Amino acid sequence: MNEVTFLSSLVTGSRSKMVLLVLDGLGGLPHPETGLTELETARAPNLDALARESTCGLIHAIGPGITPGSGPAHMALFGYDPVRYEVGRGVLSALGVGMDLGPDDLAARVNFCTVQDGLISDRRAGRISTEENARLCEKLSGIRLEGVEFTIRPEKEHRAALVFRGPGLSDLISDTDPQRTGLAPLRSEPLPGGGAAAERTAAMVNDFLDKVSTILADEHPANMIVTRGFAKKPDIPPMTRLYDLRAGAVATYPMYRAVARLVGMELVDSGPSFPEQVEALAGAWEKYDYFFVHYKYTDSRGEDGDFAAKVACIEEVDEALPRIVSLRPEVLVVTGDHSTPALLKGHSWHPSPLLLHSRWERGDDVHSFSERACAAGGLGIFYAMDLLPLMLANAQRLNKFGA
Amino acid sequence: MNEVTFLSSLVTGSRSKMVLLVLDGLGGLPHPETGLTELETARAPNLDALARESTCGLIHAIGPGITPGSGPAHMALFGYDPVRYEVGRGVLSALGVGMDLGPDDLAARVNFCTVQDGLISDRRAGRISTEENARLCEKLSGIRLEGVEFTIRPEKEHRAALVFRGPGLSDLISDTDPQRTGLAPLRSEPLPGGGAAAERTAAMVNDFLDKVSTILADEHPANMIVTRGFAKKPDIPPMTRLYDLRAGAVATYPMYRAVARLVGMELVDSGPSFPEQVEALAGAWEKYDYFFVHYKYTDSRGEDGDFAAKVACIEEVDEALPRIVSLRPEVLVVTGDHSTPALLKGHSWHPSPLLLHSRWERGDDVHSFSERACAAGGLGIFYAMDLLPLMLANAQRLNKFGA
Repeated sequence: MNEVTFLSSLVTGSRSKMVLLVLDGLGGLPHPETGLTELETARAPNLDALARESTCGLIHAIGPGITPGSGPAHMALFGYDPVRYEVGRGVLSALGVGMDLGPDDLAARVNFCTVQDGLISDRRAGRISTEENARLCEKLSGIRLEGVEFTIRPEKEHRAALVFRGPGLSDLISDTDPQRTGLAPLRSEPLPGGGAAAERTAAMVNDFLDKVSTILADEHPANMIVTRGFAKKPDIPPMTRLYDLRAGAVATYPMYRAVARLVGMELVDSGPSFPEQVEALAGAWEKYDYFFVHYKYTDSRGEDGDFAAKVACIEEVDEALPRIVSLRPEVLVVTGDHSTPALLKGHSWHPSPLLLHSRWERGDDVHSFSERACAAGGLGIFYAMDLLPLMLANAQRLNKFGA
Repeated sequence: MNEVTFLSSLVTGSRSKMVLLVLDGLGGLPHPETGLTELETARAPNLDALARESTCGLIHAIGPGITPGSGPAHMALFGYDPVRYEVGRGVLSALGVGMDLGPDDLAARVNFCTVQDGLISDRRAGRISTEENARLCEKLSGIRLEGVEFTIRPEKEHRAALVFRGPGLSDLISDTDPQRTGLAPLRSEPLPGGGAAAERTAAMVNDFLDKVSTILADEHPANMIVTRGFAKKPDIPPMTRLYDLRAGAVATYPMYRAVARLVGMELVDSGPSFPEQVEALAGAWEKYDYFFVHYKYTDSRGEDGDFAAKVACIEEVDEALPRIVSLRPEVLVVTGDHSTPALLKGHSWHPSPLLLHSRWERGDDVHSFSERACAAGGLGIFYAMDLLPLMLANAQRLNKFGA
């Protein structure tokens, strides 16, 4: 039972502290030579000790067999049905670079690319520098469109965020990124159900891309852009209001900052390393009562397929863990948003290990923090969207339902 | 999959016997000194032996993190979605004291209270005796209202049930119980969506309470009443009809008798002790095929925060268990409706341990009946509303779905 309004109706006014520490892509698969996963391989005495004092389980971001993107996986961790509250890629890009989105705004994710003889030869334009990206965005900002304003802002390397602002824009239009080299950039088309507004919007986007193509014609290697994930800001009731939370996010990557902002969190400034993130957490301790701490590199190294490097990332987090524990949050959760096994070099459907530390849990027989140990944990295997109610309950922030 | 009409469509005509034994508030939390829960502390050889011959699991009354009241928790045990089939407190009070409710009737829960200088000084009027309560109810029954009849009937100590009977009454009106001392009794107000009917009903209730105040002015300590949980009888398809059951309830507390009646069970007369309840069960054995046996005191002692007394309650039930087993029901379930850890002195969100004894289950490696052992049981962690289908299946009362 996790309709947000139902849960919201039970909230009390406690001011206890909760920390959700997400190691992105934490879950893995056993290495063929050792039979141990990244987490099982890591020397992580602090995580193991915490698991012994916690109650453990496994969580599905969406459901068995479903591999989630980071957006829906985090929405689930924040208590939202990730399928119902879907957030478009464009929105995450725009919010991630600090743009605000109004109800009329249409956002998209942009890749600079290289086109030769009309066909895409490099979808990332040789991973141009962020500075080069910024110069090109500045150059494109001279484009004029009929009745529509736009902003294009660099993200990182070849990635940028694009927002169109004008009345009657529709997000029911198709991507222009063919997601493969050797093909021409696509024309944006209205999607079924989009009606006249989608037709007008697709035509406007195509006109814009024609102008981009002209302006970038002399550039190399980034002589074109492709766009995807056209989306408007969804109507999401903020978790801060729903559950009467002051929530702070310690996240260094744009996308996670974007999701955090979308659900009402404030961003806590932090240096890029994990010890710096933990110090930022400690520094903001009095200001918030729900903290989301996001560590990115377990996922990055999993995506690289670098088993040993992912193990080292887990050990890096383990070293800084005692500082988080020393803050004595009433509720401390360590988990992943999804699995990123180095063996698969990408996100996977496998549930994420989870430990919940609280004086009000029963405990279990889990003696180390690992996927397989957590499968036998006292919390069982459950849905990520049920984590927030569990955290709120342990923080004694929920009233009883019914007499 | 538990839509009642779906389940109902699969029912066969078998006449096997099922017993659901509910130890109210059974689940607990580990005692800080021993690390053992109430159930783990209790010397309960019969429950342990039964668990070894059963298949075990944990059940969520509503969902992870959600603390249920006894009403919704029992609705779930009887196979109903407890959020969809919500039963108002007033209805449980009225049915619990044996009143029948028609579609026009509006029921409320009443507390006699003490008011000093306009403010409530004692929400329970010093827990007046049930006899004093009956005398005051009799005195109030002389009140006359325009176009509306009413009945007020003593429950126990300071508690009473109140039913208004008349056309066009609305249950969308607010409580008059402020739930705290130091405040004046509230005026009932129409709730959003209640319209003119709610306005008229609230005005009638306030007129009634003014008259109560006048009549009780000279009484002490019970010189006023507060009301809450205004509700009409919900439209609940009885489980007896849905699943072709003859169902008998051996429950001594008014509220549980009320829920049982609401879903179509007949009440079995019984003395107040658990051995007497078990004898009542045995005496009614031929008359019914589904038995709900409710033991209250595990919850009461948990609410008191009396760990040792709750342990003793579990041991009391354990002693009488062999007599239930000797009746050889095809399906015997022992569980709780929700947890009531002595450490929390109240209901909690923790799932309830459950054992299901049936010759058609697979069994598991659970060697004692406890929360943590059941977490590793063969039934896993599931929702209480899925228990009834599981009982019906084991009683071989359900057909195959589909070809």
